[in-house]
Amino acid sequence: MTIDHGALLVQAIEAVKRRNPKNIYFVACGGSLAYMYNQQYLIDRETAIPSFVLSSNEFIHRDPKGLGKDSLVITCSHSGNTPETVEATAFARRKGALTVAYSFKVDSPLWLAAEYNLHYDWGPDADAYDHRAGMALRFMFGILDAIQPKPLYKTALENIKDLQGIFARNKAKFAAAADVFGSSHKREPIVYTMASGPVYGEAYSFAICLLQEMQWVHSAAIHSGEYFHGPFEITDYDVPFLLMKTAGETRPLDERALAFATKFSKKVTVVDAEGFDWTGIDASLKSYLSAPIFGAVLRVYAERLAEHRGHPLSVRRYMWKMEY
Amino acid sequence: MTIDHGALLVQAIEAVKRRNPKNIYFVACGGSLAYMYNQQYLIDRETAIPSFVLSSNEFIHRDPKGLGKDSLVITCSHSGNTPETVEATAFARRKGALTVAYSFKVDSPLWLAAEYNLHYDWGPDADAYDHRAGMALRFMFGILDAIQPKPLYKTALENIKDLQGIFARNKAKFAAAADVFGSSHKREPIVYTMASGPVYGEAYSFAICLLQEMQWVHSAAIHSGEYFHGPFEITDYDVPFLLMKTAGETRPLDERALAFATKFSKKVTVVDAEGFDWTGIDASLKSYLSAPIFGAVLRVYAERLAEHRGHPLSVRRYMWKMEY
Repeated sequence: MTIDHGALLVQAIEAVKRRNPKNIYFVACGGSLAYMYNQQYLIDRETAIPSFVLSSNEFIHRDPKGLGKDSLVITCSHSGNTPETVEATAFARRKGALTVAYSFKVDSPLWLAAEYNLHYDWGPDADAYDHRAGMALRFMFGILDAIQPKPLYKTALENIKDLQGIFARNKAKFAAAADVFGSSHKREPIVYTMASGPVYGEAYSFAICLLQEMQWVHSAAIHSGEYFHGPFEITDYDVPFLLMKTAGETRPLDERALAFATKFSKKVTVVDAEGFDWTGIDASLKSYLSAPIFGAVLRVYAERLAEHRGHPLSVRRYMWKMEY
Repeated sequence: MTIDHGALLVQAIEAVKRRNPKNIYFVACGGSLAYMYNQQYLIDRETAIPSFVLSSNEFIHRDPKGLGKDSLVITCSHSGNTPETVEATAFARRKGALTVAYSFKVDSPLWLAAEYNLHYDWGPDADAYDHRAGMALRFMFGILDAIQPKPLYKTALENIKDLQGIFARNKAKFAAAADVFGSSHKREPIVYTMASGPVYGEAYSFAICLLQEMQWVHSAAIHSGEYFHGPFEITDYDVPFLLMKTAGETRPLDERALAFATKFSKKVTVVDAEGFDWTGIDASLKSYLSAPIFGAVLRVYAERLAEHRGHPLSVRRYMWKMEY
């Protein structure tokens, strides 16, 4: 089945423009939620529209008073059948909000629950432009360009057409470093991740999806700015940190955390967005494109760790195996 | 020096009423930031005013476009000299926002940076009503009653006058359980915390301040709703979780997480807000008062853990001991 991603996208963007939302809720769970942080950051930097990142069941039970017909609620579930995300979408729609759902599966419960749908491709053969990474950027820059046109958004929409090439070049560039990480961390019982700003969601995703879920390795995502107000006391020569330095506005936070961590831990791994291959990307977009590139590059770090540990990323003991 | 907490409070509340803010930023670091989650939850449930919890340096460097003269920025630093919180306050004030700072120290850099100040008492002899816990509730319910008077807010402002008694009764009620926790966890290298809704900040605080900072024990605060989307795969018979069940709207999330965790871990500790001594508190306020009571009760859990580990809560290796 061939899906016309572009047509679905145009419909959703037009709907957002007509609605002219007063607030935006980004609602999902786990890895799908982690992906929302970069989008929320973009909205926070480019518009005065208040926006929020909330886990699906938190959103439903919290039932924020600001939710209503002037709201845009963006949800995501890969399978399209995460029960609380489907319910969150239905809940938002009952409240009169405009609902737009990202999903890989067409005609899934999520697809049917949302008023508008954004389909993305998946798997090793999918082009990143049509992948979740690409669709999220196309939707965000598309919305921005619809409500407040700027050359920057048009440039972004052009630049990301080569997202597949950008990802491929960076995965290759960091392949050797990823293998060193995998090999040197294969016996670590805990690995902390650290990031800030638009990249925080990638630190969260690596901690809860790649390490805890797929590797059964203890982890926590530490916000680089919060590190000095508690977590840094856990730093010791043998405590591993994986730090993601953004090329965006909050970079000074990451630099400060890195300077301290490397002073007291012998196991700090840094992935620096300034070291990415930025060919074909306008320098003013580095902040907003750091997170998706980290997503692609860090997947290789996880794959190499999995390989060295003999614990494939696909292994689960509870997820999808029982009722919960 | 005697501070008239009430007079400062009245001035700040009047200023908020005059400004009629279009959005609210709760800005601080570490434990002071953790304290903001309950306040943000309250605003989210009771008003349609968008509000955000941001670490101080993230707030400055992110520089959200919504920040301006229609904003209320609430900051907190115990010492009043956390550099990034002082700077965040000055930054917000330059942007024209109304600034209100909580602090224990009068005439500190934070005190001078903010337009309005809320002083709180500290230490074992301080009455909880004048403590940070009490001042935060008095300010929040005070604001709410000023902008949209309701009997609920007046009831809250009356009920919390006995906050000291409420805390004392609950600390006593959970003293034995706290000692069991301390004794049974003294050799644990990692303890996860879990909570949702208004109590998430307490799970965060226990993880980063009590465990990582004051005990050098690995930890991460897991959101009860997010648990099933990654973190739960780390669950095993010997992995300890400290779960805080709120008496508020998100309780079903905690119940679901608890049901799963106890099935596969033999080391789940539950502190249930429904088990608190609620004498003198209107039942409709349980949601908003869960977090501060957890704060008081869990301090006893940390104290007992510290005692059994022979590692006082006051010990630090980096904090306040060097430049960072």
